[in-house]
Amino acid sequence: MEARKNEKNEARAKGGNKGSQADRPEVISQVERIPNVSGLPKAVKRRVYALKRLQVQSAHIEAKFYEEVHELERKYSGLYQPIFDKRHAVVSGAVEPTDEECEWHSEGEEDELADDLKKKIALEEKKEHTTPADDPKGIPDFWLTIFKHVDMLGDLLQEHDEPVLKHLQDITVKFSEPGQPMSFTLEFHFEPNSYFSNTVLTKMYKMKSEPDSSDPFSFEGPEIVDCEGCKIDWVKGKDVTVKTIKKKQKHKGRGTVRTITKEVPQDSFFNFFNPVKATPDGMDEDLDFTLTADFEIGHFFRERIIPRAVLYFTGEALEDDESFEEEDVEEGEEEDLDEEGEEDDGDFDPTA
Amino acid sequence: MEARKNEKNEARAKGGNKGSQADRPEVISQVERIPNVSGLPKAVKRRVYALKRLQVQSAHIEAKFYEEVHELERKYSGLYQPIFDKRHAVVSGAVEPTDEECEWHSEGEEDELADDLKKKIALEEKKEHTTPADDPKGIPDFWLTIFKHVDMLGDLLQEHDEPVLKHLQDITVKFSEPGQPMSFTLEFHFEPNSYFSNTVLTKMYKMKSEPDSSDPFSFEGPEIVDCEGCKIDWVKGKDVTVKTIKKKQKHKGRGTVRTITKEVPQDSFFNFFNPVKATPDGMDEDLDFTLTADFEIGHFFRERIIPRAVLYFTGEALEDDESFEEEDVEEGEEEDLDEEGEEDDGDFDPTA
Repeated sequence: MEARKNEKNEARAKGGNKGSQADRPEVISQVERIPNVSGLPKAVKRRVYALKRLQVQSAHIEAKFYEEVHELERKYSGLYQPIFDKRHAVVSGAVEPTDEECEWHSEGEEDELADDLKKKIALEEKKEHTTPADDPKGIPDFWLTIFKHVDMLGDLLQEHDEPVLKHLQDITVKFSEPGQPMSFTLEFHFEPNSYFSNTVLTKMYKMKSEPDSSDPFSFEGPEIVDCEGCKIDWVKGKDVTVKTIKKKQKHKGRGTVRTITKEVPQDSFFNFFNPVKATPDGMDEDLDFTLTADFEIGHFFRERIIPRAVLYFTGEALEDDESFEEEDVEEGEEEDLDEEGEEDDGDFDPTA
Repeated sequence: MEARKNEKNEARAKGGNKGSQADRPEVISQVERIPNVSGLPKAVKRRVYALKRLQVQSAHIEAKFYEEVHELERKYSGLYQPIFDKRHAVVSGAVEPTDEECEWHSEGEEDELADDLKKKIALEEKKEHTTPADDPKGIPDFWLTIFKHVDMLGDLLQEHDEPVLKHLQDITVKFSEPGQPMSFTLEFHFEPNSYFSNTVLTKMYKMKSEPDSSDPFSFEGPEIVDCEGCKIDWVKGKDVTVKTIKKKQKHKGRGTVRTITKEVPQDSFFNFFNPVKATPDGMDEDLDFTLTADFEIGHFFRERIIPRAVLYFTGEALEDDESFEEEDVEEGEEEDLDEEGEEDDGDFDPTA
């Protein structure tokens, strides 16, 4: 019912789709699809084509507009930073907020309401006092809880990821420098842990703010067109993105049988840092789908989770996100690989 | 499947809805809805409230961001202007574009494609030459055709509006000056005509870019909150927003019967310039609905139709607009008023 558009939600995570099929037929159909152009007197049709040329010029001005908005976002990310730093300090327990900083429910609400809530809270607090009051450091599992609350991430999250994500301390976003190709980089900051030696895992999303010359009218603003992960330096045996499977092998000549272990990939959130590569037109449909989902997630981290983390922790932000459709990342890989494993076992010589 | 957000499509045409029911229950339910807050140790809950206070600060920074984007849009409307002026000149026939300016299909397409199209066009042109080539001025019914193509407007458009809209020469948008309250004004430019003496009809939309103190987390950017039409100076008897109905009246004393004519409102696009007024919370639901639809339409003119008029004329833009849900403006009024007319007739004394 609402034309509910958020200026900051710029990027269309169209990814591999873009350009692949859509454009070329598009152009031809333009003539067919439009009776009131092909039907027009030649002189009038000429003028319509003139307007279409002007429209292409507009699209290029629009692209510049989006570049300036990107600049503006860079500028504002600096203004948000002190707030995000404070958030990180509270989450990690480095800073204990003052009573004033925690005064929540009296703010911006009518008194009777505040009273209502004060009662409510008083009640809860009484409950707590009957139980042994423990005081953990900061806000435990802050980011892991967010991952569990957001379906789009829950789909990626595996049980074996959870102990690793308990060490996730902060997620931040960096925008490309002015003059550089438009991009943003998600940075996942981890406390020292027994899983990998990296302190930061990064995922960079490249954007394009430029009308497609073969279909300039489809331009709707910057688009994520590619992404780049990072190498995770896993501690030996701690890599949650692989599992080891046992295999029997028979020596063709000697006929002796030995069991070897082989590492095969498995589902894990941390595969997010090892994305499939975007390829030009005609890429595999599954990959295209996976990539589009990945772009969705990158966009969602940048636009929703990082700016509003606490609201995803409490759950308050969740109902606002109907506009973001969630998409499962292809989960076929593991099975495929297992089968491959099985096939290997097929090598085992039955004539033995 | 795409997080397809356009930075320019800022305004949420939420209108009367805003604030009415949502907020006050919202605040109470925050505590109930969130087990992992009410369930948390007191010390941790304190920290979560601290983060929520930080989140409110973010919302206010975000509001400033949107004000700057609005500034940017004002700046760019100046950059688009020469293109829009040229468009107007071509549509009105004031300027005849050169052959070069009309070179359409060779642009930005691979040769084979261009060839394809050249054949297509050649064919069409041959067709035309067999028919008597007429050459009207500019692009006749340019804007009226757009009205007919866009469902959202077609719903408003009445048969009696069409002869009037044939005189519509251009639609432009003006943004509020810096420092002024945020707003935009749609300007409908008419050639001299026999219906009204105005040369420009205006519709101003007031926006608000400020988190609601009672529900700061719902802030998603500027919102249209109110609008203002303009007085149309109709030539006597040419006002398409009213119709005259005949009524019989009997003089209670003398018993003589006379027929009088009475003007009653009727559906017309031109009622767009005489909108219902937004009222604070708890306004009539139908009015709320009508107003929301009106805001939708204002937003659509600004964001889609004005910047891309030719694509709505040709129809090329239509399939891109699934994201904009269309909404019929309440059409109950006329009927109601007719009934009222009937009631009046009831005055006629049967005992005569």
